[in-house]
Amino acid sequence: MVRILVSEVGPRDGLQSISAIMPTAAKKAWIEAEAAAGVSEIEVGSFVPARLLPQLADTAELVSHALAIPHLTVAVLVPNAKGAEAAIAAGAHKLTLPLSVSETHSLANLRKTHAQVIDEAYMIAAMIRAQPPAKRPHFEGSLSTVFGCTLEGPIRDSQIEKLAAALMEAGCDDVGLADTTGYADPMSVKRLIALVRNVVGETKLTGIHLHNTRGLGLANALAALEAGLTTLDASLGGLGGCPFAPGASGNIVTEDLVFMLEAMGFETGIDLPKLLKTREILAAALPGEALYGFVPDAGLPLGWEKAA
Amino acid sequence: MVRILVSEVGPRDGLQSISAIMPTAAKKAWIEAEAAAGVSEIEVGSFVPARLLPQLADTAELVSHALAIPHLTVAVLVPNAKGAEAAIAAGAHKLTLPLSVSETHSLANLRKTHAQVIDEAYMIAAMIRAQPPAKRPHFEGSLSTVFGCTLEGPIRDSQIEKLAAALMEAGCDDVGLADTTGYADPMSVKRLIALVRNVVGETKLTGIHLHNTRGLGLANALAALEAGLTTLDASLGGLGGCPFAPGASGNIVTEDLVFMLEAMGFETGIDLPKLLKTREILAAALPGEALYGFVPDAGLPLGWEKAA
Repeated sequence: MVRILVSEVGPRDGLQSISAIMPTAAKKAWIEAEAAAGVSEIEVGSFVPARLLPQLADTAELVSHALAIPHLTVAVLVPNAKGAEAAIAAGAHKLTLPLSVSETHSLANLRKTHAQVIDEAYMIAAMIRAQPPAKRPHFEGSLSTVFGCTLEGPIRDSQIEKLAAALMEAGCDDVGLADTTGYADPMSVKRLIALVRNVVGETKLTGIHLHNTRGLGLANALAALEAGLTTLDASLGGLGGCPFAPGASGNIVTEDLVFMLEAMGFETGIDLPKLLKTREILAAALPGEALYGFVPDAGLPLGWEKAA
Repeated sequence: MVRILVSEVGPRDGLQSISAIMPTAAKKAWIEAEAAAGVSEIEVGSFVPARLLPQLADTAELVSHALAIPHLTVAVLVPNAKGAEAAIAAGAHKLTLPLSVSETHSLANLRKTHAQVIDEAYMIAAMIRAQPPAKRPHFEGSLSTVFGCTLEGPIRDSQIEKLAAALMEAGCDDVGLADTTGYADPMSVKRLIALVRNVVGETKLTGIHLHNTRGLGLANALAALEAGLTTLDASLGGLGGCPFAPGASGNIVTEDLVFMLEAMGFETGIDLPKLLKTREILAAALPGEALYGFVPDAGLPLGWEKAA
């Protein structure tokens, strides 16, 4: 049985996309409940200035809270070296630096050119190396807008290859792919996994961040699984998407993804009925916010619990 | 480039599931518009008694209207020999007889045991053989609830194999699989295609009818494509599902399916922007009815029209 890591990004990617600010206590309850349901990696926030994303201003407190949960990998997004410094100080286990392969999107999202983001990657890697070995977080470079950009359209393969190589060169432990704009299809998922693995090596690309903008989220996840990826990002209730990519919305839904994986015989370690109950925390803490997902509405097939 | 047949079932499976009765003129406009967008097979209705499904009482008139559209395969559902007689008289090109592999569901849906449905299949095949060769419609047996039943749960492989063989023996030209209840996952799709092909032969199973009840519709479609199927049912706006399977709702959305197929490089013959415009007919004729689909909301990716 193949083990698949479902990485919950709702507390970061979900909450940064909505205007309501979830109370810190509710975020803690959410993280605790998902961890108790068996989710073993949660991106709890992003170390960005609070004036840019007040929704995530309590990230340091959440990292500290989540570190007390046994067997949970506490992940955070860092937009730059300054954010990484805070993340390392907080003790996060995993740092993800997004690098938009569309330079136009990079400028809009991070206000940085490619060269500037790569410089930040070098600085982050140096900071991590300066830590004692036991305290060094995992450092992932995320190739975002890699399936196409709402501002630039398709991105040249050569540019993607160059940036993937540059992130590894700068000191990332591995790279991930992110369909920031919901442009991916199963064929492009497989094609880009092969393209980037050809540059960084097979073991250095294991994760993908997919959106469900055009309804292809789970089909793309299937393509990624078939290509051998083992880490899939998802967001409880499908909360989120990218606030800086106009028209793009909707992470893949954790509940539906876990249902697909478990139905297919993959091992996720997640208790699906417990995961479904976690939605109640979201619904209570974000009144009026749309929650997505088909399995929560349709319920589990007859005989599911017996089979599982 | 592989050609995939997207078979529109909305005028039958969609409309039978909702309480509103669409005016015949609107149905005709819908069928015409989809055919003009390049959809080459449409299930225009079902020959069931009007007292059971008043929504489909105009099926004969729709068949006659659709027959005048060049290059369109006019398909209908027939629940029994009586319906097939009417379908043949109307001149339909393709008849689909559903056989629920769950006998409990068969009794609830068609009020018939398996043996009784197989008897109807023999009678239908005989009626078709009695026609002059040029007027013989294609006759498909559809194995419904094949991925599990909301009343019985999973169905034994041996029962599925037996019924697939019985349909072919009775004189069906081929069989299709139908996930009536939305229980399928990509693994079970591949497994059941192999199982049934092993009984009927590879060329006698080319089509599948998938629902999106648990959000896996397009992932399951991808699995079916990978297994070599070339006909996929879908419903414009995701209208429909099965009215006799409690909790089951939602056909896969034609617009999203065509987007996935075209993005992947399959040839559908369908003009996606024209197809998207067809929704306006549905929206106008079915006020208040929920229409589904992600591509209609998100729009096409930047550069799509140039690439296509």
